[in-house]
Amino acid sequence: MTDAAQTAFLDRLRGLVGASGVVTGEELRGRPASWTRPAEPCAALALVRPRDTAETSAVMAACAEAGVSVVPRGGATGLVDGILCAPDQITLSTERMTGIEPVDPLAMTVVAGTGATVEAVQGAARAAGLFFPLDLGARGSATVGGTISTNAGGLRVLRYGMMREMVLGLEAVLADGTVVSSMRPLIKNNTGLDLKQLFVGTEGTLGLVTRAVLRLRPEPAGYVTALIACPGVDDGARVLRAAQAAFQGRVSSFEGLWPDFYRLMTKPGRETPPLPQDYPFYAIIEVECVPEEAERFHDLLDGLMTAGTVLDAALASSEEQRQAMWRIRDRVEHMNADGIHRAFDVSVPLARMDAYVTGALARLAAIPDCRAVVYGHIGDNNLHWNTTRLDAAGNTAIDAAIYEPLAELNGSVSAEHGIGLEKRGKLGLSRSGAEIAAMRLVKRALDPDNRLNPGKIF
Amino acid sequence: MTDAAQTAFLDRLRGLVGASGVVTGEELRGRPASWTRPAEPCAALALVRPRDTAETSAVMAACAEAGVSVVPRGGATGLVDGILCAPDQITLSTERMTGIEPVDPLAMTVVAGTGATVEAVQGAARAAGLFFPLDLGARGSATVGGTISTNAGGLRVLRYGMMREMVLGLEAVLADGTVVSSMRPLIKNNTGLDLKQLFVGTEGTLGLVTRAVLRLRPEPAGYVTALIACPGVDDGARVLRAAQAAFQGRVSSFEGLWPDFYRLMTKPGRETPPLPQDYPFYAIIEVECVPEEAERFHDLLDGLMTAGTVLDAALASSEEQRQAMWRIRDRVEHMNADGIHRAFDVSVPLARMDAYVTGALARLAAIPDCRAVVYGHIGDNNLHWNTTRLDAAGNTAIDAAIYEPLAELNGSVSAEHGIGLEKRGKLGLSRSGAEIAAMRLVKRALDPDNRLNPGKIF
Ligand SMILES: Cc1cc2nc3c(=O)[nH]c(=O)nc-3n(C[C@H](O)[C@H](O)[C@H](O)COP(=O)(O)OP(=O)(O)OC[C@H]3O[C@@H](n4cnc5c(N)ncnc54)[C@H](O)[C@@H]3O)c2cc1C
Ligand SMILES: Cc1cc2nc3c(=O)[nH]c(=O)nc-3n(C[C@H](O)[C@H](O)[C@H](O)COP(=O)(O)OP(=O)(O)OC[C@H]3O[C@@H](n4cnc5c(N)ncnc54)[C@H](O)[C@@H]3O)c2cc1C
Repeated sequence: MTDAAQTAFLDRLRGLVGASGVVTGEELRGRPASWTRPAEPCAALALVRPRDTAETSAVMAACAEAGVSVVPRGGATGLVDGILCAPDQITLSTERMTGIEPVDPLAMTVVAGTGATVEAVQGAARAAGLFFPLDLGARGSATVGGTISTNAGGLRVLRYGMMREMVLGLEAVLADGTVVSSMRPLIKNNTGLDLKQLFVGTEGTLGLVTRAVLRLRPEPAGYVTALIACPGVDDGARVLRAAQAAFQGRVSSFEGLWPDFYRLMTKPGRETPPLPQDYPFYAIIEVECVPEEAERFHDLLDGLMTAGTVLDAALASSEEQRQAMWRIRDRVEHMNADGIHRAFDVSVPLARMDAYVTGALARLAAIPDCRAVVYGHIGDNNLHWNTTRLDAAGNTAIDAAIYEPLAELNGSVSAEHGIGLEKRGKLGLSRSGAEIAAMRLVKRALDPDNRLNPGKIF
Repeated sequence: MTDAAQTAFLDRLRGLVGASGVVTGEELRGRPASWTRPAEPCAALALVRPRDTAETSAVMAACAEAGVSVVPRGGATGLVDGILCAPDQITLSTERMTGIEPVDPLAMTVVAGTGATVEAVQGAARAAGLFFPLDLGARGSATVGGTISTNAGGLRVLRYGMMREMVLGLEAVLADGTVVSSMRPLIKNNTGLDLKQLFVGTEGTLGLVTRAVLRLRPEPAGYVTALIACPGVDDGARVLRAAQAAFQGRVSSFEGLWPDFYRLMTKPGRETPPLPQDYPFYAIIEVECVPEEAERFHDLLDGLMTAGTVLDAALASSEEQRQAMWRIRDRVEHMNADGIHRAFDVSVPLARMDAYVTGALARLAAIPDCRAVVYGHIGDNNLHWNTTRLDAAGNTAIDAAIYEPLAELNGSVSAEHGIGLEKRGKLGLSRSGAEIAAMRLVKRALDPDNRLNPGKIF
């Protein structure tokens, strides 16, 4: 585009969304590229902030006409460089579409603007005596549209599913400006292709989500929480299955902690270890239940200890103790303090997890100067690795140790964070050529000129 | 096709799947067109029965090359004419792909062939001490592939979701014979478009499902069941929400029964009415729980009776009494005996259900000779109507009374059965032009020559 064409184009956008709706120059460079790149300025030609679906549609149509591609931007907390921009691209920010309509308590639904934060939706639900189960560390910034587009997981997937399961309907704008509105608040609606599925987890490559109907749940009545030690991860899995059976699926968390991780988090001066540090495997288990049911939970653990499936257990007998247990899982600072910065998010079938971890730990141990710990939502198949950051060759060796075995094990290179730019080169380890080709067919059908978040995912 | 070309084509198919894999002539005419048309013979050129994915792929490629379109056929229990064939079409039956691999008890998954029945999968799960929650009257014939392709609902959606929620992975053959295999047994796998969503609920228009990885659950520990009477459906909804809160989402069924339906089912000589017949609204509520929790359930109902939300209640105190209660909901024979044959399956947002039913009942009452009753899974937004079958003009008036208000109420013309051929003319009441256009974009991308189940849905 010539400078004059660019000026005319930006003026046209200002005409559509108002002058304050188009951010450029210094103001734009003041915005970080993303949460993971705080020091890097947003590189886009302009950041455009429409106020509603109609303005979003007009902006998209104008960009299509001008041949400018568009990168959707929510809370910018994504971890795979999904919102990185080139200087000839527009980034379309949802920050002015934050409205939340009154909760419908009978239907247990709420209609939220795409730019509303997860925390705001949680708050609206709570104010109506209800519960929005999606939760993640980035709750104060991550948005409805961003969590839909990345199909975010977080802390309660075991019991409530991922964001996909919380969206009843949504509205999206396609690359040419077409508005596709599917905002029905229905659990059941078998009338052709379920269009929302095209936009959930596709990282803004198929459409720009502008609003959604979200499903709410009753507020949990209470919890019992324990830290347990087991002979191995398979035993841990057996504990999980036994608890799910005994409490009819109300196990809300089951976090596996391998011994090196447990020891790192409970080093002297860090968290106090509720159990000795030399067991082969640990897990935090939490069950949603009323206080009367605590007894049954104790009986269950007793039985599992007698059977040798559980070696040792510590129960949280107060909210304080519960929080202290969770800190053993959550305090990322301790890993940072030990220089274990590089985070990985993968999936492995439960039955193959033990072999996978053992194999990967052996490969990692052979890399000079590499340290690695592993933990995760094992009931969701989800493992997190944290490793040292080495030089390029070292990092490549670490990537290989963690990612390469996944293809053969039917695992996934991304459990919850998505592909973005960061994992593009790894997609082929989790998806066959035929699968990627089928995705491309859909991409081409909805965005034939490759204008929406081009270059992301594939 | 000339006769000679047809013979050559059928010979080619026999070469791919064996002589017994191609059914034609008398043997084919002996098969009914579908469960709803028992007297009508299957009209296809041939029924082809591949034994696996590779044979399915070869058949699809041969049909594509010959320009012959293909209608997938599972258990033939679908209720919307989705498997009806024209004489120049092949119907591809999944009846020889019924294998079920051993259950993985740790992962709680099972891999099933597309032609396996729902009952067979339930049995395999039970034999492993687990539970496959999908259940419907057609369980002995309905198949894995058919329930995936129609996103079947059934009796336990409130607690476990529809078939969509039970599929972790699947394998499908596209119209040109391409095999897209996504058989990972993972809960979390955010690596681009979730391909299985293209095939769930699209009634065989985008691909032929050949296998699936299904998610299993722990076996329910027991139930408490009650029949309640309320001042109206909104109060019924409040009872549902209170029970979901008190039992952390373990309400497994909540079936609303409007008074005309209750009276019809409990006429003298039919089911015994556990409650008087003159209440404004009834519901059967069932909660999954251990026996110790029955007390809490009674307390909950007591509280709701004191508040006036529940007017009367009868508890099932034995399995026999529980079965007797369920017969009031399930005995379709009683409706048939009264000539109320025509069945409808629609969705309405819960908060608007009362107004919808009142309005529709008034319109139906104005149609000469029309009788109608209504009941349904109201927690899923799902209502079933059963009406008299009249002449063409009368049936059209009934359709209008039931379907027309749905568009404005954000409802759906099909909650669980799908669109098929039967509801094609009604699709526009539930889907906007933009939604249908978006569906067509995907259809054209995956099946550009419109060979897979052409004419179904749209
Ligand atoms: C501290 C921290 C903790 C985290 N914990 C978790 C966790 O537990 N589980 C988890 O799954 N993730 C987690 N994440 C990752 C991140 O929070 C999620 O991916 C989140 O869903 C991103 O939301 P966002 O609004 O910030 O999206 P952004 O980062 O702005 O965008 C993410 C992607 O979605 C696209 N996008 C954004 N909005 C739209 C829209 N309206 N329409 C179309 N496309 C859009 C963008 O183009 C980009 O590709 C965490 C991140 C941080 C920083
Ligand atoms: C007595 C009875 C009770 C019922 N109760 C319920 C209920 O409670 N809830 C509910 O949702 N439904 C119910 N149904 C409807 C029906 O059982 C379901 O729709 C079921 O999912 C159909 O399965 P099927 O194998 O018989 O499929 P079919 O009838 O053979 O096919 C259904 C559709 O799916 C397509 N199809 C079949 N197999 C494949 C495949 N492998 N790949 C691609 N496309 C395929 C067909 O082309 C057709 O469009 C009931 C039906 C009956 C007869």
